[in-house]
Amino acid sequence: MIKQVLLASITGLFAVTAGAADIQLPAPVQTGGAPLMTAIGARRSERSFDATHSLSPQTLSDLLWTTWGISSPDGRRTVPTARNLQNIDLYVALGDGVYLYQAAQNKLQKITDNDVRPLLAGQQTFALSAPVHLLFVAEPDEMGWAAMHAGSMYQNAGLFCAANHLSAVVRGMIDREALHQALNLSEKQKVLVELAVGYKPVTQ
Amino acid sequence: MIKQVLLASITGLFAVTAGAADIQLPAPVQTGGAPLMTAIGARRSERSFDATHSLSPQTLSDLLWTTWGISSPDGRRTVPTARNLQNIDLYVALGDGVYLYQAAQNKLQKITDNDVRPLLAGQQTFALSAPVHLLFVAEPDEMGWAAMHAGSMYQNAGLFCAANHLSAVVRGMIDREALHQALNLSEKQKVLVELAVGYKPVTQ
Repeated sequence: MIKQVLLASITGLFAVTAGAADIQLPAPVQTGGAPLMTAIGARRSERSFDATHSLSPQTLSDLLWTTWGISSPDGRRTVPTARNLQNIDLYVALGDGVYLYQAAQNKLQKITDNDVRPLLAGQQTFALSAPVHLLFVAEPDEMGWAAMHAGSMYQNAGLFCAANHLSAVVRGMIDREALHQALNLSEKQKVLVELAVGYKPVTQ
Repeated sequence: MIKQVLLASITGLFAVTAGAADIQLPAPVQTGGAPLMTAIGARRSERSFDATHSLSPQTLSDLLWTTWGISSPDGRRTVPTARNLQNIDLYVALGDGVYLYQAAQNKLQKITDNDVRPLLAGQQTFALSAPVHLLFVAEPDEMGWAAMHAGSMYQNAGLFCAANHLSAVVRGMIDREALHQALNLSEKQKVLVELAVGYKPVTQ
């Protein structure tokens, strides 16, 4: 157990220092887009994805900014948090590993090379074909703020997907224990929920 | 205590049957609006309201549809809920009482004539000047779904407000016990959080 923790810590440290594995995203487009009411009306939970078609760096950057980006010179975010504590983290699982979204640097910081998508999908194999997964990680609190923040974030993301012909579905049936270990989370942190994202299959 | 419960039940029954106190809303406008990314970037928590300027029935209808409306012929909503249980209620506190939003009928059903805004504002007197308050009511669950649903709903509402020059702020410092009684909620139901909404003061 101690060995595991130590290894996890070293892995975490390596990820932080090994900038080569990180992904610098293009600047997000922060204006324009589909009309708000149309996007709200079009948003649906969709469970079919084209596994062969991932998001472009620009689309991923825009999606992440929408979900948890900085939208004000004072550092405030695209969703409000209680007392502006911003106490939630957005992890992004891609085929080549999991990244932590660093909004200020507009960067994806590599956390692990492991493909955790099987831990996310479980028995819901449809989720395996989603190329992008957004993981909402926070310390649960009695008031439910962490969950509310996650709900706001995946709603923003869902509207972006609706406006950009992307499929997205909120999922709670994930292997939280295995993910906790894979992401080297602190004792109190928890993967609250995830949003699976991808393009619709061409055959639809 | 029994007398209070009985009175509350009678009041509740009266509200349900006394259609005259209900408000039939105009059909919500479900298309158009500000560009999505612009609305997301413009959304801020704002705590100043013009107490003399309430929302028009049309704007209120649009706001409520955005927050918890039906956006599909199969009855699905503008925010997703776990297993589509739709297990959250949207109450609307106005100066003349509190209403339950009935999305299918696009109606506000009167629940009480009491002005509960002092119970919502507490020591945060700025909230007293907000003409409209959205109350998110559900049975809390271990997974935090109820809180996530509320978070999605107030995010949609916040985007609508940003796109329509309305101030809005999410608030948790409310007198839940007094509100529970005033709204005649069931034992398990809870007012999770509220969104105070109104126009900005003219002097700003």
